[in-house]
Amino acid sequence: MDLRIDQLQRRAAGQAGVIPMAGGLPADELLPRTELAHAMESILSNRLQAVGGRASIEPGPPRRSWPECVIKLRGWIADRLNARGATVDDDDVIITAGAQQALSLVARTLKPGRRIAVGDESYPAAITAFTNAQHDVLADGDADVHYLVDGVSNPRGIDVVGPRREELLASHAALIVDEACVELRFDGRVPRPLLADAPDRVWHIGTFSKVICPGIGVGWLIPPRAWRSEILARIRRDELQHGSLVQAALARLLGESDHDARIARARSLYAARAELTLAALRRHLPSWQVVEPEGGLAIWAESDLDGDDVEVMAAAISNGVAIDPGCLFRPSGQGTPMAFRLSFAQAPQSDIEEGIRRLARATRSYRRCDREHAA
Amino acid sequence: MDLRIDQLQRRAAGQAGVIPMAGGLPADELLPRTELAHAMESILSNRLQAVGGRASIEPGPPRRSWPECVIKLRGWIADRLNARGATVDDDDVIITAGAQQALSLVARTLKPGRRIAVGDESYPAAITAFTNAQHDVLADGDADVHYLVDGVSNPRGIDVVGPRREELLASHAALIVDEACVELRFDGRVPRPLLADAPDRVWHIGTFSKVICPGIGVGWLIPPRAWRSEILARIRRDELQHGSLVQAALARLLGESDHDARIARARSLYAARAELTLAALRRHLPSWQVVEPEGGLAIWAESDLDGDDVEVMAAAISNGVAIDPGCLFRPSGQGTPMAFRLSFAQAPQSDIEEGIRRLARATRSYRRCDREHAA
Repeated sequence: MDLRIDQLQRRAAGQAGVIPMAGGLPADELLPRTELAHAMESILSNRLQAVGGRASIEPGPPRRSWPECVIKLRGWIADRLNARGATVDDDDVIITAGAQQALSLVARTLKPGRRIAVGDESYPAAITAFTNAQHDVLADGDADVHYLVDGVSNPRGIDVVGPRREELLASHAALIVDEACVELRFDGRVPRPLLADAPDRVWHIGTFSKVICPGIGVGWLIPPRAWRSEILARIRRDELQHGSLVQAALARLLGESDHDARIARARSLYAARAELTLAALRRHLPSWQVVEPEGGLAIWAESDLDGDDVEVMAAAISNGVAIDPGCLFRPSGQGTPMAFRLSFAQAPQSDIEEGIRRLARATRSYRRCDREHAA
Repeated sequence: MDLRIDQLQRRAAGQAGVIPMAGGLPADELLPRTELAHAMESILSNRLQAVGGRASIEPGPPRRSWPECVIKLRGWIADRLNARGATVDDDDVIITAGAQQALSLVARTLKPGRRIAVGDESYPAAITAFTNAQHDVLADGDADVHYLVDGVSNPRGIDVVGPRREELLASHAALIVDEACVELRFDGRVPRPLLADAPDRVWHIGTFSKVICPGIGVGWLIPPRAWRSEILARIRRDELQHGSLVQAALARLLGESDHDARIARARSLYAARAELTLAALRRHLPSWQVVEPEGGLAIWAESDLDGDDVEVMAAAISNGVAIDPGCLFRPSGQGTPMAFRLSFAQAPQSDIEEGIRRLARATRSYRRCDREHAA
C-alpha cells in the first residue's frame, strides 16, 4: 500500500472533527454492546476447564488439538449456511482469527503462482494476502482462481456473482467466496451459497466483524474437504492461540439473541443512510458517476477528476472528511476513472450531507491546486 | 505429541468428577471476572473508531498497519519491565496472539536448523514450535540458542536461570526467555530480566494467561531491535487480525486495578496449595522424588515406576484424576525416571489430597497390570 495513505489515515485519526467515511466499520448504533457485555460476563461466571494442554473457558473438551475451535459457534455457522441450501457439517467449519486469517490461510495453501481474478476493484486485504503469497492478481480474464465477494461486493456494493453464477459453476476454477456482507442486501435477498453447488472447489469465508462487532477477530473458513487436513495442519504449525473467551461469548450471544432481527435492523439503517448519501452526492457532486449500492456499508463513486486520488484524499481530510481512495481497491494500485469508496455506516446520519459537502469542497480545492501546478 | 495423550485428554474432559491436576490453567478463584466483565463493558460503551482500513475499538490511531497493537498495553508492559531494570520503549513491545504466537514467530524467524537447548524438560508447546520450524531441539550442550523459562521453570517450578545467569550472559548464544510465571515465585522475588543485560540477544516473551485470564489470547514479544522489522513484516504477512476488543479491555483493567495486589494474592494461594500437594505426596506416594516448587502452578514428581507414563496417565484418569505425563515435557518425548507434572492450581483446595490419593491408587493398579502383563 502507498505509504502516503497510511500516513493520511494516521492524520485523519488524530484530527478532531473529521467525518469518518473511510474504512469498513459497521454502524456504531448497531453494536450489540449490552448483549456482548452480558455474554462475556456470563461466560466468565463459568468455572475454567482444566484437563488438556491449553486454556478453554467454553464448557467442552480442551482445545489443545482442536484448532477449529469452539464447537457451538461452528454449529451455528453450519446451520445458517444449511438453511440457505448448503450441506455443511459442524466439523467442516474452521474458526479463524478474523476473515483475515482465513484469507491468509487460503492464499498460503494454494500453490504459489496461481492466477487469481478479483475484478476491476476488490477488497484490499484480499489483494494483499494473495500478492504476499506470490500469486498473480489480475482483474479478469483467464484465471485459475476467482475471488468473489458474494451478495454485496466490495467496494461497489452490488451483486457481482449472481449474473455470473452459471458461468462460474461451469468453470473448473477454484472459487474463494467471501461472504462478509452477504446478509446486508437492502432487498433482504440472501443468495444461495456457491458452496452449496461446488463444495469441492469453493473456499468459503465469513466474518462476524460486519454484523456483530469489529475487533473481536472471529471469522471462519470452510475449505473444500480435500484441503481440510492441510489447513488444520497449517493452523497447528502457526501455533496460533485463539481467543477462546471472546469466541465463547459470541456463541452465547448468538444462541440467546435473534440474529435475523439484528440483520433486519442493520439492513434498514444502512438502506436509509445509502439513500441520504446518494442524494447528497447528486446535490453536491452532480458530475460524479455513482454506483447505487444494493447493500453493505459504502458507496463507490467515480469522479470526473484527473490525477492522483491520494491527493484528493489528503484534500478531503484537510476539509474534514475521511474517504478511501479508489487505488486501494484496484489490483494494479491504479486505474481510471478516479474513484472513491464512501462509507455511510460510520458517520452519524446527521453528518452525511456535511461529509459530502466537505468532499465537494475538497475537490474544488484539488482542482485549483492542480491547475496552479500545471500553470 | 503422542496421539494417546490427546485421546486421554478428551476422555478426561468428558468424564464427570475427574480432579483436574493436568494442564496449565491458573486457579479459578483468581480470575478477575467482575473486573474483566466491567472493563469489557466500558470499552464497548465507546464509539467505534473509523478512519483507516481496519477495525479499532481502542481510542487511538487505526490499526491497519500497526500489528504491534494497542498502545496502552504496550506501555504497561514496558513500564513493568523497566521497573525491574530493563530499558524498553513502548515501541519495542509487540502484542501477540498469546505466548504461542510469540514462540512461533521466534521459531520461524530464526534460521532453520538452529540447535536450541531447552533443558531436560521444558514447555511442550515451545518444543513443538521449535521442532515445527525445523530446529534441532536438545536438552543441553553446545547450543546456538537457549530457551529459558525464567523465574519459575516449567515443569519443575524452580529458578533454573539464576544459577546460570553469568554463564548465559557470557555466552554468545541467542536467548529465548519465556516469563510466563516469572511473577509467581512464592518468595516474592522477581528476577532482573535477562533482557536488561543482553537486549541484543534476548527474545523476550510474556503472557497474560497465567496472571489475568486464560483464553484471552494476549501475549507479547520483545525481539532484539535488529529483528524487530522482520518480525513485524512476518506478522503483516500472516495477516492476522488481532482481537482488539479484548486487548483494549485488558489495557483498561490493568490501568484501573492493583496488579501487584493481584499477584500477591496469587502467590499466597499457590504457595498454600503447593504445601498441601507436597504433604499429600509424602503421605500417599512416599517413594516418589518430588521437586519442591519455588513458584508457579505445578509440581514435578519423579516416580519409582517403570514402563510407560501414558499408561499411568490412563490409569489415573480411570481412577478420577487427570495428570500430565512427563514425556510431554522431554525434548525426545521419552526419558527416565518416569515423572509427572501435577498442577495444584485448578483442583479446589479440598480436592488436592483426594487427587493424590487417586493417583496413588492408579499407580498400584498400574503396577498390578504391569506384573500381570510381564507374567
